[in-house]
Amino acid sequence: MRALGDLRLSIAEVPVTAGHRVLTAGSKRDLAVEPLVRTYNVEPAPPSLADLRADDRRVVEELAATHGVRCTSVDSECARLIPAFMRTQDWRAAALVRGTELIGMKPVGKSVLGLAVDLGTTGLAASLFDLADGTIRASKGELNPQQRYGADIITRIDGARRSPERAGELKHVVIEAISRMAQELAASAGGSAEGISDLVVVGNTAMHHLFLGLPLDQLARAPHIPSVGSHVEVKARELGLKLHPGAYTYFPPNPAAFIGSDHIAMLLAAGAHETDEPSLYMDIGTNTEICLLAGERMTSVSCASGPAFEGVHLSSGMGAVPGAIERLTLSNGCVQVQTIDGDAPRGLCGSGILDLCSELLLHGLMEPSGRLCTTQDVLKPLETETGFIVLDQGELGAERPITIHQRDIRNVQLAKAAIQAGTMLLLQSEGLTWNDLSQVVVAGAFGNYLNLQSARRLGLLPPVPLERIVQVGNAAGAGAGMMLLSPSCRDQAEQIARSLRYLELAREPDFQRIFLKSIALGHYEE
Amino acid sequence: MRALGDLRLSIAEVPVTAGHRVLTAGSKRDLAVEPLVRTYNVEPAPPSLADLRADDRRVVEELAATHGVRCTSVDSECARLIPAFMRTQDWRAAALVRGTELIGMKPVGKSVLGLAVDLGTTGLAASLFDLADGTIRASKGELNPQQRYGADIITRIDGARRSPERAGELKHVVIEAISRMAQELAASAGGSAEGISDLVVVGNTAMHHLFLGLPLDQLARAPHIPSVGSHVEVKARELGLKLHPGAYTYFPPNPAAFIGSDHIAMLLAAGAHETDEPSLYMDIGTNTEICLLAGERMTSVSCASGPAFEGVHLSSGMGAVPGAIERLTLSNGCVQVQTIDGDAPRGLCGSGILDLCSELLLHGLMEPSGRLCTTQDVLKPLETETGFIVLDQGELGAERPITIHQRDIRNVQLAKAAIQAGTMLLLQSEGLTWNDLSQVVVAGAFGNYLNLQSARRLGLLPPVPLERIVQVGNAAGAGAGMMLLSPSCRDQAEQIARSLRYLELAREPDFQRIFLKSIALGHYEE
Repeated sequence: MRALGDLRLSIAEVPVTAGHRVLTAGSKRDLAVEPLVRTYNVEPAPPSLADLRADDRRVVEELAATHGVRCTSVDSECARLIPAFMRTQDWRAAALVRGTELIGMKPVGKSVLGLAVDLGTTGLAASLFDLADGTIRASKGELNPQQRYGADIITRIDGARRSPERAGELKHVVIEAISRMAQELAASAGGSAEGISDLVVVGNTAMHHLFLGLPLDQLARAPHIPSVGSHVEVKARELGLKLHPGAYTYFPPNPAAFIGSDHIAMLLAAGAHETDEPSLYMDIGTNTEICLLAGERMTSVSCASGPAFEGVHLSSGMGAVPGAIERLTLSNGCVQVQTIDGDAPRGLCGSGILDLCSELLLHGLMEPSGRLCTTQDVLKPLETETGFIVLDQGELGAERPITIHQRDIRNVQLAKAAIQAGTMLLLQSEGLTWNDLSQVVVAGAFGNYLNLQSARRLGLLPPVPLERIVQVGNAAGAGAGMMLLSPSCRDQAEQIARSLRYLELAREPDFQRIFLKSIALGHYEE
Repeated sequence: MRALGDLRLSIAEVPVTAGHRVLTAGSKRDLAVEPLVRTYNVEPAPPSLADLRADDRRVVEELAATHGVRCTSVDSECARLIPAFMRTQDWRAAALVRGTELIGMKPVGKSVLGLAVDLGTTGLAASLFDLADGTIRASKGELNPQQRYGADIITRIDGARRSPERAGELKHVVIEAISRMAQELAASAGGSAEGISDLVVVGNTAMHHLFLGLPLDQLARAPHIPSVGSHVEVKARELGLKLHPGAYTYFPPNPAAFIGSDHIAMLLAAGAHETDEPSLYMDIGTNTEICLLAGERMTSVSCASGPAFEGVHLSSGMGAVPGAIERLTLSNGCVQVQTIDGDAPRGLCGSGILDLCSELLLHGLMEPSGRLCTTQDVLKPLETETGFIVLDQGELGAERPITIHQRDIRNVQLAKAAIQAGTMLLLQSEGLTWNDLSQVVVAGAFGNYLNLQSARRLGLLPPVPLERIVQVGNAAGAGAGMMLLSPSCRDQAEQIARSLRYLELAREPDFQRIFLKSIALGHYEE
């Protein structure tokens, strides 16, 4: 998986602005830029003995008189800042209005910025938007600093449950990271984080709860219940974020413990609510969320697919960083690879693993059961255990041997089986087969870079014709951006969350059977 | 002036409940009890593998299903508390809803309380209401703890402007006092401050700004501009108040530097917005606010009347505490007094001073110019300066001599002149005379206890027939209670604030002339 650089790129690339309208690549739809935070230039009369109105009233009444904008409340920090600010600006400034609330003032002519953040277990990705025209001014991806408290989310949640201090630290490091990213992004666009007056954050439910300091006990224990499923709107400063003092943070709803707002954002960006043909939406990761749209019904499952496709727990696995093999073919006993940035090969990232397994199956070096056939002489077998040397030291510039072991295959199989079983149960719950699917949308960084042929051959994706498969990149991040640019997108996200049905795989009597059947590679039952 | 005990009593006494309707004594009007915070008993289904909804959604969806109540947001603290609380309550509890926001949960059957606070420069007065039926559960008055930073508001504001630490202390001591009063009131009603889920605070603009930590520079310097004139709604916890975690604090608008939300609350309670005959509304204190209602026009002035009627800066003056002379008559050379609580006389409070001046004038011991005629032998003249001994040591049990000096009379004259000049300019601005007034409403603790005959004789009140004068007690506190019990009263208060015109006396060319003419006692020009 090309984790971070790609998250960054894909958030940045998905919404393409065209004047005041934004096209999202995934759905090829138009999006009208109608940000919730609007700016209006105002020049209220300065105070005098003949005009003794309060400072805030001057601005509010000017907004009504000049722009027909009705403000029924004034943010408390904004109220605190107005007197000195308006006097230094000689009573000429731009007012920031969100709905019917006056949230701030700024000098005339300065950009009004918004930030969309995708809060992943592994990485944080943020894109800075100009709210006036919807253009992306800068983007950035980073490792989630919570990693130092545990690479996986379970470890972090356990830590937070055991100690309020740890919970506080887990929250704090993310808040600090986002504040810093906001500052860096704004600086790169010639502004400051103070100019960011709206924020949308999407993420899985556990990240959401850690970020908001919500209770975790009922989330961690069966039957796994989020404390909050509704959307949340809270002043960014209440969370400790250093943005514009009046800025709000919007979190879309997260319908279930294993279906977070990132899934909702992905469905929004992919246009799931606008389709009426049977469609499948997949976001492949350590947890893979899959949504089946059938008629007006939306059903989602979450599959514990493990980190194999992130290159974790594999003998030569690695993240999607320069030197990772992202494409691999095997023909006539000859290994051909493509590495990230063209660097000397150092290991296999998710899409490379997928290609390798697909080629092993295609060329008979692996049985559908996953058993490696080391009697074959296409690749050099390992001496110490079952497996192959894919590239020997020095071969194509490899600094060390790149290998594939039998236990690597088992990890890939478990991941693929979880995803395939989830897909099949979803289809079964609606009385459909993969053949009925008019569209399979693959989201996420790994989903964006995987070789569709390989994925279909192994059974990771249903064997639909290639033209029915759409790769949409980091649709969750794109969805966050859409919600930043349009309140009607927030309504749509909330509508999606309300109508979404969550199918708990553990409750499905058929799950174990289908999962075991799905362990075989290349197998996709009709 | 009977300052504190009376503030307490008068807040408590003004609204009289009758079933679910509250009568306000001042206006004799009905008030429907429709508090903004409502409670609904809910029994959502507990979580199970078959029902994995988030905890907050269970409550929100149950509210919609059982009570038809739509919540579009959940307070963040409420969300944090729901999981543990609902599990200890076995999923049976009462939900607190404010508008469309779920602000909290409580055990079934516990009272929902609200607090109305009148934030005075001298005293704090608070009344605790049961929001279910509008009854007053307890009331309390205390000295404003900011007194230790300066008895008058100017000293406190200067301190706050010079040092942010001082500003913080001024804010902190009031917050702490209100939190403590809330706790004591709730305890006396068998509850706790956590049960207080709504709060309305009224006060003068300076107290409002100190309380909210708003900028003071533009308020303290001419032309004296409030930073905030709009109503303010803010979570009580954001201010540091220890009430229900989801409780809001509502501050009505304060239209001008010297016309605060207490004036608006007084006008609301006195029914000023429901009258169409020319009426005058006066709240007499260190600053005296007067409003003239003429047709649909409401105009207010603020008069710097000084603290004479609070018994301050007078040779034998004192606050309205036990032992203060509150009524005084002089006949046949014999002084008769009534003291607060019947204690031995220790000095004169505001209404006593007023009676004394009136009697001096009536019996020729004082000329209309204010000059004391010590040649008279009705009262024993002072030996060292111009003045009288009202009661000698031991007389009627007096512990020390109670005296009136020429300079005391001057202080009373200045106060009376400021109030009379304000009244006359108001009338003049609308082309009216006092004779056109169909009603003179006198609010405040001093206004409630003053002898109307004395006040008219001296020219403090216009010489209208007694039946046109109404004493309404602490109408500001009563107005705060009304806004607590009914959102439509908040709307009315905002409407009053919007329509109110503020007349700055300093700008009126006639003010100085009328003020000087008004120094004469007993004088009220036709």
